[in-house]
Amino acid sequence: MIDISGTYTDQYQLTMGQVYFSKGEAEKTAIFDYFFRKLPFEGGFAIFAGLETLLDYLQDLKFSDKDLEFLSTQNFSKEYLDYLRSFRFRGKIFSMKEGDVVFPGAPVLRVEANIIEAQIIETLLLNVLNFQTLIATKAARMAIQAKGRMLIDFGLRRAQGFGGYHASRAAVIGGFEATSNTRAGRDFHIPVSGTMAHSFIQSYENELDAFRDFAEIHPKNAILLVDTYDTLKSGLPNAIKVGKEMESRGHKLKGIRLDSGDLAYLSRKSREMLDKAGLDYVKISVSNQLDEHLIKSLLDQEAPIDIFGVGTSLVTGKPNAALDGVYKLSYFKNRPRIKLSETIAKVTLPHRKQVYRLLDDSGTFLGSDVVCVEGEKNPEMMYHPYDPLKFRFVGEVEKEELLSLVMEDQKRVHKKTSIKEIKEFSKKRLDQLPTEYKRFFNPHIYKVGISGKLRDERNSLIEEHKNKRS
Amino acid sequence: MIDISGTYTDQYQLTMGQVYFSKGEAEKTAIFDYFFRKLPFEGGFAIFAGLETLLDYLQDLKFSDKDLEFLSTQNFSKEYLDYLRSFRFRGKIFSMKEGDVVFPGAPVLRVEANIIEAQIIETLLLNVLNFQTLIATKAARMAIQAKGRMLIDFGLRRAQGFGGYHASRAAVIGGFEATSNTRAGRDFHIPVSGTMAHSFIQSYENELDAFRDFAEIHPKNAILLVDTYDTLKSGLPNAIKVGKEMESRGHKLKGIRLDSGDLAYLSRKSREMLDKAGLDYVKISVSNQLDEHLIKSLLDQEAPIDIFGVGTSLVTGKPNAALDGVYKLSYFKNRPRIKLSETIAKVTLPHRKQVYRLLDDSGTFLGSDVVCVEGEKNPEMMYHPYDPLKFRFVGEVEKEELLSLVMEDQKRVHKKTSIKEIKEFSKKRLDQLPTEYKRFFNPHIYKVGISGKLRDERNSLIEEHKNKRS
Repeated sequence: MIDISGTYTDQYQLTMGQVYFSKGEAEKTAIFDYFFRKLPFEGGFAIFAGLETLLDYLQDLKFSDKDLEFLSTQNFSKEYLDYLRSFRFRGKIFSMKEGDVVFPGAPVLRVEANIIEAQIIETLLLNVLNFQTLIATKAARMAIQAKGRMLIDFGLRRAQGFGGYHASRAAVIGGFEATSNTRAGRDFHIPVSGTMAHSFIQSYENELDAFRDFAEIHPKNAILLVDTYDTLKSGLPNAIKVGKEMESRGHKLKGIRLDSGDLAYLSRKSREMLDKAGLDYVKISVSNQLDEHLIKSLLDQEAPIDIFGVGTSLVTGKPNAALDGVYKLSYFKNRPRIKLSETIAKVTLPHRKQVYRLLDDSGTFLGSDVVCVEGEKNPEMMYHPYDPLKFRFVGEVEKEELLSLVMEDQKRVHKKTSIKEIKEFSKKRLDQLPTEYKRFFNPHIYKVGISGKLRDERNSLIEEHKNKRS
Repeated sequence: MIDISGTYTDQYQLTMGQVYFSKGEAEKTAIFDYFFRKLPFEGGFAIFAGLETLLDYLQDLKFSDKDLEFLSTQNFSKEYLDYLRSFRFRGKIFSMKEGDVVFPGAPVLRVEANIIEAQIIETLLLNVLNFQTLIATKAARMAIQAKGRMLIDFGLRRAQGFGGYHASRAAVIGGFEATSNTRAGRDFHIPVSGTMAHSFIQSYENELDAFRDFAEIHPKNAILLVDTYDTLKSGLPNAIKVGKEMESRGHKLKGIRLDSGDLAYLSRKSREMLDKAGLDYVKISVSNQLDEHLIKSLLDQEAPIDIFGVGTSLVTGKPNAALDGVYKLSYFKNRPRIKLSETIAKVTLPHRKQVYRLLDDSGTFLGSDVVCVEGEKNPEMMYHPYDPLKFRFVGEVEKEELLSLVMEDQKRVHKKTSIKEIKEFSKKRLDQLPTEYKRFFNPHIYKVGISGKLRDERNSLIEEHKNKRS
């Protein structure tokens, strides 16, 4: 069993906290940015997910007695442990909206809190946001390819342990309609779905009896798995027989499921056989190691598939495994902060920042987000973060402020957004993104630039550190 | 928050359960095998992990009030919901030992329970065992390459959500010494480790002050992160200065950490600078996107590294994402069961089975496990599962029975094995595995064969199903 409390963190957060505490720095305010550097799946966008989950945890975050007992064995001072005993996250969170389309380099979320609080929540924040954003993005890629056909998450058994719980949540945000994961259905109000496994058919002396019993007990919700023995010679004929029997009782067989073999061929053959039997309303669902590429390939072949069940590659974000989101200090004790690096692309952006998205009159994204120092209202130019030859005029276009206050004083600023609302918002935002950013191969690169002011402030901090060193 | 209860399952388990219940089959005993088909990471072995976790959950598994409330909205009968209200897992579990070296095709674990119980636990079982086995295997691959150097898990922030919790457990089973994951340290009694992030150094006006404060507050456990501004020009000189100051106070700097740049070059330069300053006891730890291949490469270059911190690729099992473990019905209502498939490799093995491992006199594995029908004591021959041309004589060699009863009557048969014991057992078993199965490229293939009796019983079931169809 796992619950979220103060020790859901990396030990170094607590070790650093001890120093801040001992040195009287505990109450000094720090600003950290959450952002990522690389889009997953070699795609052209990501879907931001996990925010409401994070806020739920932050509202209640504290160190339990069990936590404190453990930490008392870890070389911390008694006074610091007392401080942790009364720990709450009292800081502010500014964030983009959950479900929005997001891009590398722009802060997706900003934390303003005392330095110890800001550090202690880092691990939880990264753990929740990196993973759900990865999975919502994967799901959205599949939804784009499925072109309105139904997608169901089948992943829990192959998920990375308890990661499967939030994977099902993120999948729905990205465009899935339902999940096999009963627990996720219970907790997130997602429709659950599930009919039968091969074992059910194996447990009968023959396939037909298995189908008959299932259809009798679940007359409104029978999807018959037809590939246990032989799809076209046994599974389909038996399913058709049962479908006709159901008709005679005034019921309708809901669907069949194909879980092996050539799904393009078998779905076409199945459709023919079902239609010929007058069962044109019976849906064809398929599963078996699907991902967005296979969904595309099946529909490119005009396979008559109504429902895709997707497991492993969805809930694990295969082949990427992780979003590379990071959490970097940008301001502390009234001074902007920077981290240098051998590679300029990894030098962080200092300061309290805001992100503007540029849109045309119809609401279509113009392919540019501009990161500014907060307070700048109308950046005239945007600059490539580190290539001095690249810049462009912003002009008098529509600008959206993407970061807004979502939490302070241990509470959400607005009421909690439902998954349904997040899902709808995400769909709307993806519709605002031009199609060339959504294609699989060499998608167009959405630009994230910085304002002249931010660039100048960063460069002067770089100079300052160079001078200190020499 | 997530706790394990009956709804931590796939909906179809419950849907099938309703049919068994309504048809009066609820109390009939079924046997399911857990096994996997493909070794992860193109390696020559896997490390079985997650068993004790699973047993913990199975002991207490039930449907909570919240579960039942949700399920009452899901088209189940009142009588079935009452049955679920009193649900406990009362079956038997036979298993290989946690930490053992395991191979594709042989049952790693067997469940004997009434059909509803056996189905309901399937998802949890697969979810726990597939993931921990994947991660323990990944960790063992790294441990083999690290050749005794210390490995620390840094992965929680990039883990797949709550998957990070058990990832840290499995990493230790596979050979890691410690984790940054404080919660895993608390719950699994794993040493925790963690000193400072870049943000700590950024929060100071200069690096030297940051190092000094940290060394003052944590004199016994200071590992200084030296790459925030410039590793060799700033980080190392400052770390050396602080190390000498610590000496003058009777303390010893524990280590430095390199987190970017060329780790082979920087570790060598760092070692030289530290040694020249008389700080030859200061350890060098490195991190930054490490995996088993990078660890090997660094040590092939004789980089003087003492500690490896590994994150993403460890806790996500990159690039594999999931072990393909499955759970298949092999026996029900006093009859062996089989699932056919278009590909013979996917036809399941029927019957209640036992697995024998062959060893030589010194305890070295002979590279063969034999799957038998339970009760067969001394299989003379072993056969390739589906290639009739491949078989071999077993002979009078040492044989170990790998599956044994671990749980019945809602309790473990033996006392719970500690992670330390599992880790030691795993190391011992890996030592028994000849080196050619442990290399990276084209490892030798460990054979999993079947006895003549099992082969014959399977083939006659295949015939039987063919005849039914025709």
